[in-house]
Amino acid sequence: MRFEPLHRTHDSAARTGVLRLPHGDVRTPAFMPVGTYAAVKAMSPEELLEIGFEIVLANTYHLHLRPGDETIRDLGGLHRFMHWERPILTDSGGFQVFSLSGLRRLTDDGVEFASPLDGAKIFLTPEKAVEIQNRLGADVIMALDECTPFPCEFAPARRSMELTLGWAERSKRAHTRTDEQALFGIVQGSVYPELRAECARRLVDIDLPGYAIGGLSVGEPKQAMLEALDVVAPLLPADRPRYAMGVGTPWDFLECVERGIDLFDCVMPTRVARNGRAYVRGGTRNIRNARYTRDPRPLDETCECPTCRNYSRAYLRHLHQAGEILSARLLTYHNLHFFQDCIVRIRRAVEAGSLSLLRAEWTREEATFRELETAETEEDEDAGEGQDT
Amino acid sequence: MRFEPLHRTHDSAARTGVLRLPHGDVRTPAFMPVGTYAAVKAMSPEELLEIGFEIVLANTYHLHLRPGDETIRDLGGLHRFMHWERPILTDSGGFQVFSLSGLRRLTDDGVEFASPLDGAKIFLTPEKAVEIQNRLGADVIMALDECTPFPCEFAPARRSMELTLGWAERSKRAHTRTDEQALFGIVQGSVYPELRAECARRLVDIDLPGYAIGGLSVGEPKQAMLEALDVVAPLLPADRPRYAMGVGTPWDFLECVERGIDLFDCVMPTRVARNGRAYVRGGTRNIRNARYTRDPRPLDETCECPTCRNYSRAYLRHLHQAGEILSARLLTYHNLHFFQDCIVRIRRAVEAGSLSLLRAEWTREEATFRELETAETEEDEDAGEGQDT
Repeated sequence: MRFEPLHRTHDSAARTGVLRLPHGDVRTPAFMPVGTYAAVKAMSPEELLEIGFEIVLANTYHLHLRPGDETIRDLGGLHRFMHWERPILTDSGGFQVFSLSGLRRLTDDGVEFASPLDGAKIFLTPEKAVEIQNRLGADVIMALDECTPFPCEFAPARRSMELTLGWAERSKRAHTRTDEQALFGIVQGSVYPELRAECARRLVDIDLPGYAIGGLSVGEPKQAMLEALDVVAPLLPADRPRYAMGVGTPWDFLECVERGIDLFDCVMPTRVARNGRAYVRGGTRNIRNARYTRDPRPLDETCECPTCRNYSRAYLRHLHQAGEILSARLLTYHNLHFFQDCIVRIRRAVEAGSLSLLRAEWTREEATFRELETAETEEDEDAGEGQDT
Repeated sequence: MRFEPLHRTHDSAARTGVLRLPHGDVRTPAFMPVGTYAAVKAMSPEELLEIGFEIVLANTYHLHLRPGDETIRDLGGLHRFMHWERPILTDSGGFQVFSLSGLRRLTDDGVEFASPLDGAKIFLTPEKAVEIQNRLGADVIMALDECTPFPCEFAPARRSMELTLGWAERSKRAHTRTDEQALFGIVQGSVYPELRAECARRLVDIDLPGYAIGGLSVGEPKQAMLEALDVVAPLLPADRPRYAMGVGTPWDFLECVERGIDLFDCVMPTRVARNGRAYVRGGTRNIRNARYTRDPRPLDETCECPTCRNYSRAYLRHLHQAGEILSARLLTYHNLHFFQDCIVRIRRAVEAGSLSLLRAEWTREEATFRELETAETEEDEDAGEGQDT
């Protein structure tokens, strides 16, 4: 794996680059759609390519439980299994163990939890997380970490950071397929700048091909997230990619990129689509809203995705109300297209040195959207029309 | 609307033809996928075109209830609403009133039932069924009929046939958009040859651009269905299309085509796909079966659809077990592709005069499939492997 920074801006840490991986190049900044069970929910791999994605994320925790990493290895690895020949990143499974499994026992050695499928005890160690990810065969794999919840006191945050650093070293020792898979370490330290800084420095000493910032998007105020990035990003080597785990919205991307972040992943565009919510310039729209019942306009009048080119809000609302799978498909496509479009705009703005113009444009769009929403809500009320959201 | 018969066979009533409709030509025999709520479940219109479908069916009953035929008319009609610019056929809603709605009151004038959405009383008459379908704007619309259940005594079957004939006349009088929409009548008469024959003759006297045979696929033995066709089809004019409503499987198509049928529709390929069942040469496969857990082969090794080109049984089983929408998509695509492939083979066999060869080939495939299934089941049992179907 090689990371080649390309453009840098003068007034911020923003940059573009290319991440060269065994299954292809990834232009950064990049957003990775989440394919938990080796499928991005409601999407086909062809659609992901069409939208422009160059890398997807899959979840080690879920795939270990079902269908099992040995099964996937025997079937030729994750790429062949899910029919995605481009790069893949797998997480370590740690985040899910700490956020999804109720009962767990944490020791220095690893973490024990019960499978939600059959209750079987599973002991996940840094070595085992690497072994599982070796079997899956993603281009980028993640070291097992402890993701601290928010809020978290200083003392447990410090203990957790030490654990994560120890696990990062053990992960590196356990990982031998370094030519085929790049192992990233994860910076923890909760909202404490001194812990974040110490974690970043010591992780850099371990010397890994890429670094992630974890423990973000876990409920902390946005300012705390940005402060963590302000502390951490400058301490990470410029020739290695930086990944903000679980972040976020297009608006977050802009602020993170200005702080030197290259990679993002988030379940929001796919998850909210299945609940009828669409990202549009300046905000989001809930297609279940009664005001769309006879609305012939597309979701977003400036969007060029097939959903917006071919379907009305009225039809999309109808599909959602009728429980049609096509509703999830069309909204997911639109949301992912919107996210990718935002990333591409950010990339171009970095190249053109015009990030601040883009920021101003997005702020204006937000204001316009709010005004329009207010006007349309008042119209609904004048018409005595209820809303079912 | 014009129907042009093209090829005829010498040893059966089988034929090919072209149905010229306002939104395009439909080569017959044709299978119409069912798009109940103005969407073929799990499919996009582009995928339907890619598979080769030239006409789809939509359900008047469901669309009248939700989102309403006036809404669809105001949005530019059904074609624009669902982004399908090719021909559409809508049924009359009668079948659903009689099969889905619990409480209903039938008079000579029409049938009253309660909306399953809000309990509101709806009175459906032949005139209203035409009016609703005029608003939807499909290329082919159906006269309201009473679909008798199976079994049905002679006397009620006769009364029902009379009702259906009276409603057909009223439908014809109510339908004024004859240039834009072709109204088909429906032959009823249950399993009684004399009723079927009388209904066909009197319906032909009414003079409609196409004729359907209804009351099939309602639980009667297959032989009864074929006998009804044997009686009815020869009585229908050769220059009008014949449509076997709700029929059936590819094996049924062959037998119906031999009896002179041109059009089919059936929910099976889409419905069973969502339950994990795939049509393959010679039979069906339930992808939930444990034996597929590590099976790297495609669903059907002779199939050229994208699902079979790109995905293993193991992956499809995994997607289904994980509840992924992509499972419904890939299996639905395969099943519809399989149905269309069978129709195209039948069409070519009619043209080549080789229907009996095709029949023999399908019989052989069925035997081979049964043998293979037996062998694989025994292997599973030898391996002590349970099945979860």
